[in-house]
Amino acid sequence: MDLFKKLENRPSPLGEFTSDGYGYYTFPKLEGPLGPKMKFNGKDVVVWSINDYLGIGANPDIREVDHQAAKKHTFSVPMGARLMTGNSDQHEALERELADFVHKPHALLLNYGYQGIMSVIHALVDRNDFLIYDELSHACIVDGKQLAMSDKSVYQHNDIESLEKQLKRATSRSKENSSILVVTEGVFGMTGDLGKLKEIIALKEKYDFRLLVDDAHGLGTLGDDGSGTGTHLGVQDGIDIYFGTFAKSVALIGAFVATEPRVVEFLKANARSQIFAKSLPLAIVESARERIKLIRANPQWREKLWENTLRLRNGLREIGYNVLPSESPVTPVLTEGSTDLCTTIMRELRENHGVFVSGVAYPVVPRGMVLIRLIPMASHTDKHIDKTLNAFEAIKPIVFQNVSEKISA
Amino acid sequence: MDLFKKLENRPSPLGEFTSDGYGYYTFPKLEGPLGPKMKFNGKDVVVWSINDYLGIGANPDIREVDHQAAKKHTFSVPMGARLMTGNSDQHEALERELADFVHKPHALLLNYGYQGIMSVIHALVDRNDFLIYDELSHACIVDGKQLAMSDKSVYQHNDIESLEKQLKRATSRSKENSSILVVTEGVFGMTGDLGKLKEIIALKEKYDFRLLVDDAHGLGTLGDDGSGTGTHLGVQDGIDIYFGTFAKSVALIGAFVATEPRVVEFLKANARSQIFAKSLPLAIVESARERIKLIRANPQWREKLWENTLRLRNGLREIGYNVLPSESPVTPVLTEGSTDLCTTIMRELRENHGVFVSGVAYPVVPRGMVLIRLIPMASHTDKHIDKTLNAFEAIKPIVFQNVSEKISA
Repeated sequence: MDLFKKLENRPSPLGEFTSDGYGYYTFPKLEGPLGPKMKFNGKDVVVWSINDYLGIGANPDIREVDHQAAKKHTFSVPMGARLMTGNSDQHEALERELADFVHKPHALLLNYGYQGIMSVIHALVDRNDFLIYDELSHACIVDGKQLAMSDKSVYQHNDIESLEKQLKRATSRSKENSSILVVTEGVFGMTGDLGKLKEIIALKEKYDFRLLVDDAHGLGTLGDDGSGTGTHLGVQDGIDIYFGTFAKSVALIGAFVATEPRVVEFLKANARSQIFAKSLPLAIVESARERIKLIRANPQWREKLWENTLRLRNGLREIGYNVLPSESPVTPVLTEGSTDLCTTIMRELRENHGVFVSGVAYPVVPRGMVLIRLIPMASHTDKHIDKTLNAFEAIKPIVFQNVSEKISA
Repeated sequence: MDLFKKLENRPSPLGEFTSDGYGYYTFPKLEGPLGPKMKFNGKDVVVWSINDYLGIGANPDIREVDHQAAKKHTFSVPMGARLMTGNSDQHEALERELADFVHKPHALLLNYGYQGIMSVIHALVDRNDFLIYDELSHACIVDGKQLAMSDKSVYQHNDIESLEKQLKRATSRSKENSSILVVTEGVFGMTGDLGKLKEIIALKEKYDFRLLVDDAHGLGTLGDDGSGTGTHLGVQDGIDIYFGTFAKSVALIGAFVATEPRVVEFLKANARSQIFAKSLPLAIVESARERIKLIRANPQWREKLWENTLRLRNGLREIGYNVLPSESPVTPVLTEGSTDLCTTIMRELRENHGVFVSGVAYPVVPRGMVLIRLIPMASHTDKHIDKTLNAFEAIKPIVFQNVSEKISA
């Protein structure tokens, strides 16, 4: 049958949001300067949906750096893939600075996080190898896994027993030239819980494997010096390949892996999206260098982020909300209800309380549950938090209506 | 065995280039303002290796546009995936302008070309479908194909008989809910020949399929109005999904697909790298809008590009080189020889003649062949071309040494 006709009828993972909610629940436009307060549909809102954790995106120094970098280089330079004509001293300097930041010997800059980690996973394992990953891994890891030629197996989220079962299986099936790669995340972005890195790394005593950690949400937010979840948990050395993206705390595009030089050399010649696609623009590289420098020089941003996180979280709990036990700034509020309740909460907060949050329902969370995810930033003020807590207090009758209905039913 | 130990010994597709040629044959640094004349290892070189076909990357208006866009927005805006918080009026306006440019009803902006087309292919076909693609398709198409759940088959490069064989096979195996997607390129980037779009589209009279064309090198360089290979061949209407990237003529990052609205709607909810990765930065979107406007307003850039292409190509042929019959600006010079000859030619031209070209040998071309690829740009001058022709004249004894050795042997 005609492919296009068929696409019309293929069910969408977004369900009714796609058509009805366009521009509101999906593809909303947050306007005005980036920050905790922006415009949505012409109204001022306090924003809890963007990952500019340290508030660096609105930093006046950064505005100046970006502007000068664009003036100097335009967005065109360099042209071509890094391997061909897209390399520069600045790309290499940023790699050294990133490696130093996350306490690894070497790093490889990636032109985009999604395709970057995907190609890294794809390149690392061959058909004799075993790839084992956490079931809640991000889409980019899943796509990388999908491309990999190795045997693949999944373990239950953060379940060490389940992981060990897969390690046992892989080890028992290993041939002489088989290797094992375990992939997990530092911070799981939807729920904010950390990957059990300490327990996973402890398994190295019994099994021969390497560990890749996607620390998209941990970089900049966790660890004394902002170097991420491994440092925070005291096990950075046990992470064999550390993946960080610029899309969250650094508030840019681009990403990197930090690891041993021999692995960087291998990936330089084998990570397909890096060999066959354009290099990260020089203006962005220059901005990234300055942003990393600022993040390292301003630990008080991280302190403020955590202060805000705790204030928000404790406040929500005090007024009766079920905040999941997140160990990162990600603040997930779970309640019972349908997709309708999810959209009602978002709409109510936006329209009547000037508070912008994102919510997800089935199939991202189990049917009958609604997850409202709040992302605190260092740039939020006490006033923003209080306004938000007042709003959550005010909408309690709506949020908990279903729960009591169910109880009385 | 240990994964890292194993990587040390895995053969690299770059072979000896990786270790010996780093910074020279691979990962070279072209410095100074972007253009036909840049610095390599401190020396002035005429550059024939970058895809800034129309010379827009060095345009003074563009420098101003980029600088003002960065000043206004920084590189941070918008944060998040387009679906979540990364949408803007400008993203949507650029989509309308791109659709208009390439004569399609609608377009979807993609945050990066590689992951963009990959996820589009991945999303379009399901396990009941058939994906048929040209054997010389770019890596991003191959990765998209790899991710797709459909049946997959390859046809010999630009061989319509071979394609028809695959269409027959797919049609005969089709179930009621099976669809067929054919994928090819407008311009094949290594050799410059065009996809046989007219002949492929003619097959629609006999077989029910949709056609996706990756026109990375055709956008801006081909067609009366720069709208690409389909327009150039008079068959733009027959292309069901037109893919263009900003990485070549537009000299940026980002990409788009232009097609029917129902397909755009479907992809908005299903193209994974777009749903789960950060939106294209607003400053880059603003720059893209201005660049597309300039490309449309300055057809003389394209005329100059073609004038330069013909002057270079005819000159090379006159002095005895085998220029493959490219129908795009890509100018491939083929000669016999080993990888050693390939590196010798590059080194000789760079060191003794101030000419920077890229060459490829086995496994990109058959063993015993060397391909030197020259990319003319509108910004090259007659002086640049003459200097280059003189250089190619001067190195003839080196280039053809092997050929005569073989003859006399």
